[in-house]
Amino acid sequence: MRVLGVDPGLTRCGLGLVDGATGRPPTLVAVGVVRTPADLDIARRLVLIEAGIVEWITEYRPDAVAVERVFAQHNVQTVMGTAQAAGVAMLVAARMGLPVALHTPSEVKAAVTGSGRAGKEQVTEMVTRILKLPERPTPADAADALALAICHVWRGGVTNRFQQAVAAQASSRGGRR
Amino acid sequence: MRVLGVDPGLTRCGLGLVDGATGRPPTLVAVGVVRTPADLDIARRLVLIEAGIVEWITEYRPDAVAVERVFAQHNVQTVMGTAQAAGVAMLVAARMGLPVALHTPSEVKAAVTGSGRAGKEQVTEMVTRILKLPERPTPADAADALALAICHVWRGGVTNRFQQAVAAQASSRGGRR
Repeated sequence: MRVLGVDPGLTRCGLGLVDGATGRPPTLVAVGVVRTPADLDIARRLVLIEAGIVEWITEYRPDAVAVERVFAQHNVQTVMGTAQAAGVAMLVAARMGLPVALHTPSEVKAAVTGSGRAGKEQVTEMVTRILKLPERPTPADAADALALAICHVWRGGVTNRFQQAVAAQASSRGGRR
Repeated sequence: MRVLGVDPGLTRCGLGLVDGATGRPPTLVAVGVVRTPADLDIARRLVLIEAGIVEWITEYRPDAVAVERVFAQHNVQTVMGTAQAAGVAMLVAARMGLPVALHTPSEVKAAVTGSGRAGKEQVTEMVTRILKLPERPTPADAADALALAICHVWRGGVTNRFQQAVAAQASSRGGRR
């Protein structure tokens, strides 16, 4: 399963691609950021973000896209732009036929560090270790995008195992009928 | 000048098209809403909104798009979806080469009713009168989209007159050099 994680933002939109499967350590495919100039109007910044995500999906063909869920109470000054960048990521993924998942920052932190209240430093550190990277991914938005992708692979794994268990249970019941 | 006003929303995204010029009363071109089902995931709802706006722009060829500016402090439960619908409208307009303007709700109310604190009823009433409509446009989102378009035509008129004055001043100065 190849997952594109998106840490949304207008100035820097983090993109992190990971290959993973249940019971195997995930591996890095690609990581980077789409940057847009602060002096451009927001409409054109969204166009640049759209183009960047389309390019990544076209080049790397992920199976799913995981986007950070944005909350209204976070950093009021930038939250609208962040929400709109997240909306563009969801739009592009759905338009290209990919399943979209949203994960909250604390779900992502808990998945990679074991604590939903871990700091940015700790998330970057754990992403570096989990993916066995020679150095820490920078900027933090890129590391966060990888953490989102890892979180999705691992949570997706759990869902799949659960679904498999349900399916197995259903078929064994069916067999006994 | 033909303006498409967009009152953003996931459940109902109001669209209102108006033709107008400085010193002449604006006229209605078209009005409606893009609706998306509440049981669809947000990513696919954004895809439907995008498709609806692309269709309107392709059919009616506006010269500009005016979108309501969304604030973080408004109705926290729905504000993220509203912001994302607004983002999609801005994205589509910019991608199709159209200028995008944002107007605050109080700018729009002030433009059509004379008061920035007018109620929804009053806005609908004034839009009906200004455009000489045989009946009130419904739902309220459709009336709000028309109010946005009227606001933009009128404010655009002011901007254009100012720019013309500046240009005239500059050319008369140039002539004296």
